[in-house]
Amino acid sequence: MAVNLLPPEPLSLHPVAGVELGVAMAGVRKQNRTDLLVMRLAPGGSVAGVFTRNRFCAAPVVLAREHLAAGRGVRALVVNTGNANAGTGDDGLRRARLVCQALAEALGCEREQVLPFSTGVIMEPLPAERIVAALPAALADLGASNWAQAAAAIMTTDTVPKARSAQVPLAAGTVTITGIAKGAGMIHPDMATMLGFLCCDAALPQPVLQALLAEVADESFNCITVDGDTSTNDALVLAATGACGVRVAHVSDPDYARLRNALREVAIWLAQAIVRDGEGATKFVTVQVEAGRSREECRRVAYAIAHSPLVKTAFFASDPNLGRILAAIGYAGIADLDTAAVELYIDDVPVAAGGGRHPDYREEQGIAAMRKDEFAVRVVLNRGAAAARLWTCDLSFDYVKINAEYRT
Amino acid sequence: MAVNLLPPEPLSLHPVAGVELGVAMAGVRKQNRTDLLVMRLAPGGSVAGVFTRNRFCAAPVVLAREHLAAGRGVRALVVNTGNANAGTGDDGLRRARLVCQALAEALGCEREQVLPFSTGVIMEPLPAERIVAALPAALADLGASNWAQAAAAIMTTDTVPKARSAQVPLAAGTVTITGIAKGAGMIHPDMATMLGFLCCDAALPQPVLQALLAEVADESFNCITVDGDTSTNDALVLAATGACGVRVAHVSDPDYARLRNALREVAIWLAQAIVRDGEGATKFVTVQVEAGRSREECRRVAYAIAHSPLVKTAFFASDPNLGRILAAIGYAGIADLDTAAVELYIDDVPVAAGGGRHPDYREEQGIAAMRKDEFAVRVVLNRGAAAARLWTCDLSFDYVKINAEYRT
Repeated sequence: MAVNLLPPEPLSLHPVAGVELGVAMAGVRKQNRTDLLVMRLAPGGSVAGVFTRNRFCAAPVVLAREHLAAGRGVRALVVNTGNANAGTGDDGLRRARLVCQALAEALGCEREQVLPFSTGVIMEPLPAERIVAALPAALADLGASNWAQAAAAIMTTDTVPKARSAQVPLAAGTVTITGIAKGAGMIHPDMATMLGFLCCDAALPQPVLQALLAEVADESFNCITVDGDTSTNDALVLAATGACGVRVAHVSDPDYARLRNALREVAIWLAQAIVRDGEGATKFVTVQVEAGRSREECRRVAYAIAHSPLVKTAFFASDPNLGRILAAIGYAGIADLDTAAVELYIDDVPVAAGGGRHPDYREEQGIAAMRKDEFAVRVVLNRGAAAARLWTCDLSFDYVKINAEYRT
Repeated sequence: MAVNLLPPEPLSLHPVAGVELGVAMAGVRKQNRTDLLVMRLAPGGSVAGVFTRNRFCAAPVVLAREHLAAGRGVRALVVNTGNANAGTGDDGLRRARLVCQALAEALGCEREQVLPFSTGVIMEPLPAERIVAALPAALADLGASNWAQAAAAIMTTDTVPKARSAQVPLAAGTVTITGIAKGAGMIHPDMATMLGFLCCDAALPQPVLQALLAEVADESFNCITVDGDTSTNDALVLAATGACGVRVAHVSDPDYARLRNALREVAIWLAQAIVRDGEGATKFVTVQVEAGRSREECRRVAYAIAHSPLVKTAFFASDPNLGRILAAIGYAGIADLDTAAVELYIDDVPVAAGGGRHPDYREEQGIAAMRKDEFAVRVVLNRGAAAARLWTCDLSFDYVKINAEYRT
């Protein structure tokens, strides 16, 4: 059902020197389902993370932030699906610590060197003992070439595993980037996505790595929405192992921009993959808002369109009921918007101008554009030079079905 | 399909002295459908209105505002369904003026004494000539007892006509209130609802009437949401004919409060009726947020819950997936929210406390509460003395179906 998204070709996923991955079945929520991932990092690298700003953020998010801030270096990530360990109070923190502690002991490192991640149902106690019991199996599975298995292990309502690799030639040598992500619903990242893990084998000081990640997240995972629900568990992590011997020391280093561009491409691909596999999605829609006074107001307009249930059901029906888009622009909160100046396009079809329907617009054109499984909604505000772009999907019967039946 | 909402019993709807109503079939969008309402007001009364703040507000909204501001008194309202005359630019204004002009000529009044209202598809030209041609039939139908027919004439995706009456004994005599409303989708009023018309036979100076309407709207139509889409055509009008001889001259008049309370009861009933008949609705849910620092932050939390597609699909499934409600509270934008202090209840069942599941909560209790077709979500923030309440419905297959097929 995902829109133009195929499972990754395992051979297309490059190992990243210094990173090993192992998966196992812990039976967190269901039996016979690979629901546990351990990612082991070689010592000496650096790790950056961005996390949800949801106030009810999950216990693993609290802990991962704490452990990163401790600055002892990160030696492993542990990820479970089936249970988000969110809305679980102090008991949730205790259980997440238990898992970190067990993995740290097995790896011979400190608890603060392990970052925990969870995704799944909210407000149920994490079965930490079952996860701990499955750690040996995940460790026995550790290998550098397990990226496809890792991408599959972190899926929940995803229908397609999401993974992507790139190699970028820098002055001092070639750097390899590989990343995985998951998420299909509760997608309106506000700092990061459900779960995304990006690794590269360059060496970057932690503050440079954190700046790089923030920049990349802002143009990728922070530009998507499926349903406008910001998750309690969003986390995006970037690890730089340094194992390929290439060092990028400053943001002013010319190699920084090259690395950022390559990383951004991987991150955008993964973020778009989440939308293509959005719950019930049948359309992949780019919303582009141009000529606004600020990026912020362009984003407001873009999100008003992308979150409107009426616009999203019209996408689903391939129905150019484009007045619904005008209505969303109108309530996006720009108090002094001159509606007569606004232009609206579906792909290259001019739809609205002068406060109403464009004189050349014919309904057949709108239908033809919206029947495609990918198209762009372009809004030109004509009041400034700023722009914003985001990616979203439609609202279909299957979104309701998936979410009405999620726990059954 | 509406949740505990029956069509009005015609005899329960009291005529309001000074108000006559007539309906007709104009064939605006479909043949053989009553889609035109004329409401004639006796001279000497006063009229107040509140309108959508959507920047792409419809031509009739622009005109109704202008005509009210002209201050010449209002002699008639004309309402069509099937076409919203929104997103139609200057041509839309011209067409709405044409309808007002024709009705004014037939009634022997000025164009500025007619208020136009439209609801239906956005961004299509209003067939003004067909409406004008049907005006004589509507005028021939004028009568004081046509409230039920009027409520039916303004329906679009509504499945049940919405009308309500009350009589309130004031010091100087009994005042009669009757109101009608329509709306089922694109419901997130920001000043008013889709269309609501309230009439009473008391006499109030226009500024007092406007204050009264604003106060009543704020506690009724401005407290509902179906899908979070603020319409281009929202309008709520209150006419006071003065025909019963009772005068309420000041907001400090003791009768003002009595009249306001009776009017508020009618307005809340009508606003709730819109939610009960919300597109695809199977549940009527009250969201009550208490002990916040300000009404504004309580409303933000309540709307975050009421707009979350994940919460709404859980309502539909009667699934106490209550972590989704915590997630919505968490992203409602209260930066310094102490999640450990938040309490969550479904009806009287304590669900969450201390940042997680309430120790006494058992899933069966949540299921029992949510299986009912009406229940309340109550959030206690424990950080202040303010509160807010709103009414919403679930998100069902039928919402998607209705809106995917709206124009077919």
